[in-house]
Amino acid sequence: MRDRFSIQLEYYKNLAEETLDSVFSAFNIPNELNNAMRYSVFAGGKRLRPSLCYAVWEMLGGDLSKTSPNCPIRILGASIELIHTYSLIHDDLPCMDDDDFRRGKPSNHKMFGEAMAILAGDALLNLAYENLFSLCKNNPFESQNIIKAAELIANCAGATGMVAGQTLDMNSNNSNDKKQLKEIHSLKTGMLIRASVLCGAFLHDISQECFERLDEFAKDFGILFQITDDLLDECGEEANLGKTTGKDKASGKLTYVSVFGVEVAKSKANNTAHSAKERIAGFENSEFLARLVDETLTRIK
Amino acid sequence: MRDRFSIQLEYYKNLAEETLDSVFSAFNIPNELNNAMRYSVFAGGKRLRPSLCYAVWEMLGGDLSKTSPNCPIRILGASIELIHTYSLIHDDLPCMDDDDFRRGKPSNHKMFGEAMAILAGDALLNLAYENLFSLCKNNPFESQNIIKAAELIANCAGATGMVAGQTLDMNSNNSNDKKQLKEIHSLKTGMLIRASVLCGAFLHDISQECFERLDEFAKDFGILFQITDDLLDECGEEANLGKTTGKDKASGKLTYVSVFGVEVAKSKANNTAHSAKERIAGFENSEFLARLVDETLTRIK
Repeated sequence: MRDRFSIQLEYYKNLAEETLDSVFSAFNIPNELNNAMRYSVFAGGKRLRPSLCYAVWEMLGGDLSKTSPNCPIRILGASIELIHTYSLIHDDLPCMDDDDFRRGKPSNHKMFGEAMAILAGDALLNLAYENLFSLCKNNPFESQNIIKAAELIANCAGATGMVAGQTLDMNSNNSNDKKQLKEIHSLKTGMLIRASVLCGAFLHDISQECFERLDEFAKDFGILFQITDDLLDECGEEANLGKTTGKDKASGKLTYVSVFGVEVAKSKANNTAHSAKERIAGFENSEFLARLVDETLTRIK
Repeated sequence: MRDRFSIQLEYYKNLAEETLDSVFSAFNIPNELNNAMRYSVFAGGKRLRPSLCYAVWEMLGGDLSKTSPNCPIRILGASIELIHTYSLIHDDLPCMDDDDFRRGKPSNHKMFGEAMAILAGDALLNLAYENLFSLCKNNPFESQNIIKAAELIANCAGATGMVAGQTLDMNSNNSNDKKQLKEIHSLKTGMLIRASVLCGAFLHDISQECFERLDEFAKDFGILFQITDDLLDECGEEANLGKTTGKDKASGKLTYVSVFGVEVAKSKANNTAHSAKERIAGFENSEFLARLVDETLTRIK
């Protein structure tokens, strides 16, 4: 029998899928562009970021069963997923990581060509913001909270967030710099996870202290996710499923494994998971998030 | 002696430059990314789009001499310029138009490499929206009007606007289809011009009828701009200044010249300029915009 956690995780994933589908149906996008955009958005992602967003929002008192696809929390989560997807498409390009496969399928540029992949990425990034502005317009009484959440998402995605991390990653040149490793990943992976955790909090009026605890949780979760991702690329099963072509390893990019080795990286993952759970232990109804931490850790076991 | 029009045009250009500079100084962007972003933003563009935006706003009663760089109209205009700049960087890439020069200087990827050019473009698009959300947050009493303007900008830039036009353009394949020509350019060039003209109008409470006249003016202006741009590429002086490398012509892309020939294109430019001026003739203080139409037309004479 599937447990409560698995059912809830699948529920969040399904809500994200439904919301993303409804987002696309609201726009009359030219066929070829639409196909390229949808190909990557509906390529079987786990929807971790919207799930985090939804889980935090419910932990703080929200109830997703009462929401429709166009309500604030659902659009916020879906917009982060659109931004995440654009970043994967651009990351996979030949001049970037040059990955031929993503989630076991040909990457976007292998299917549609490089030019279309660039445009599909651009369009997905833009689509995220089109939805966020539309959300602000359609919810005038909540608009100040939504604007704060949307601004956070944009800050986490951009030139001082994820794109900054992609730039540093691209220029990391096989050094062995621990500080740089942390900086790259806290920006490249960590920032969108931070946006996912915190943007739901903006829709509730929580105290500054609670907000800061969630922010610390988000940082820990981001690091945990990156360490376990690096470990999976090195020795896990997902790599065999075409998750990456292993070019990261060949290109000498900075990873937790390349810098610390497998055993120290595993120990760091354990410690970070422990810390993440402590950050949220004081919240009521934090069981789902604590279990999500455990499941993220045990991906590597 | 320089005339009033030239002085006002330069004033708008300077305001746009000052606003863009202030936008960058508000973010602590990693050096290499910052350099690549600034290289294209401050590459000597005419600032046509923010100038249009500022001119419409002043025609409707605004006074830019009373504004600071972070006021709504100035950020709206600067954001459109950031979006325009990102689109040029991505358009110039080898897999897109493959242009080595832009405004007489090496294009972004020739200076910084393809990966950095993609990231700089992504970051500029994102930066536009970071500024727009920040603007909404900092101006709560005007936020509903700003949100409407920002949503319009996002819609004009994205998968049903400029990016749709780029996609259709990429796939146009040297056909001679007049309807397709108009559709491509009304999206690819016309939509950001439309956003420039209309977003200033959202900050004033104008009637639906005035709004529609401005919308028609924007459409005419966009077509006029595109026809004269195509004529300049074919036979004008700007081409010799490295504005393009002439690859458009070689690649057989759809242009007003390729479809209609030089003489008919010139005649269409004349008619469109006439129509544009009629659309705004009923507005008080429309002299600047009428003269801008004339100057755009006489680029080709």
